[in-house]
Amino acid sequence: MDERIEISMLLDFYGSMLTDKQRDIMYLYYNEDFSLAEISEHTNTSRQAIFDIVKRCNKILIEYEDKLKLLEKFMKLTKTKELILNKLNEIDSSCDNIKISNSINEIINEINNI
Amino acid sequence: MDERIEISMLLDFYGSMLTDKQRDIMYLYYNEDFSLAEISEHTNTSRQAIFDIVKRCNKILIEYEDKLKLLEKFMKLTKTKELILNKLNEIDSSCDNIKISNSINEIINEINNI
Repeated sequence: MDERIEISMLLDFYGSMLTDKQRDIMYLYYNEDFSLAEISEHTNTSRQAIFDIVKRCNKILIEYEDKLKLLEKFMKLTKTKELILNKLNEIDSSCDNIKISNSINEIINEINNI
Repeated sequence: MDERIEISMLLDFYGSMLTDKQRDIMYLYYNEDFSLAEISEHTNTSRQAIFDIVKRCNKILIEYEDKLKLLEKFMKLTKTKELILNKLNEIDSSCDNIKISNSINEIINEINNI
């Protein structure tokens, strides 16, 4: 996975563990594609301080993932959901029983909400 | 939920965020039902120190749950899985198509592995 995308996803999972300031800076850098200089201006903080915060938060997020593996589990769950949805759609398209078809579609909705 | 069961479950989710010593003590107290005195003897640490570690780790685990809500999400997922499994079993028992029945059972296995 591209490192920027990975950090952006880790930020989704573990952003609540950062301080508001850390989270805001990481959000601007990884999700809004602000440069360090732009964030520096935006937050009235030196470019070096922003660089240090980004570097440190990167390390923190990766350490959380090493311990809790929420991104890894999410990727695995996403694959399993796809596999299940494919099977359910196959059943639905081969099934001529309206009651079964309705139940299948209720299950598809539940899976999509996981 | 009973507080001991809740802490024991939080320990499953966030135990990796504690130090080895903290995790061992919490495990003995919440999962093995050791008393503070027994853990004190077992770990060659004062009873007061054990009490402080248990109290502090309790607080840490609850803070992690406040931020990441892994237990809350797990409880929700468990309910959704039950609901889906019930629906799949209903379809399976009302279905006389062997191919659909086989697919349903494959999906049941996948759901059980989530």
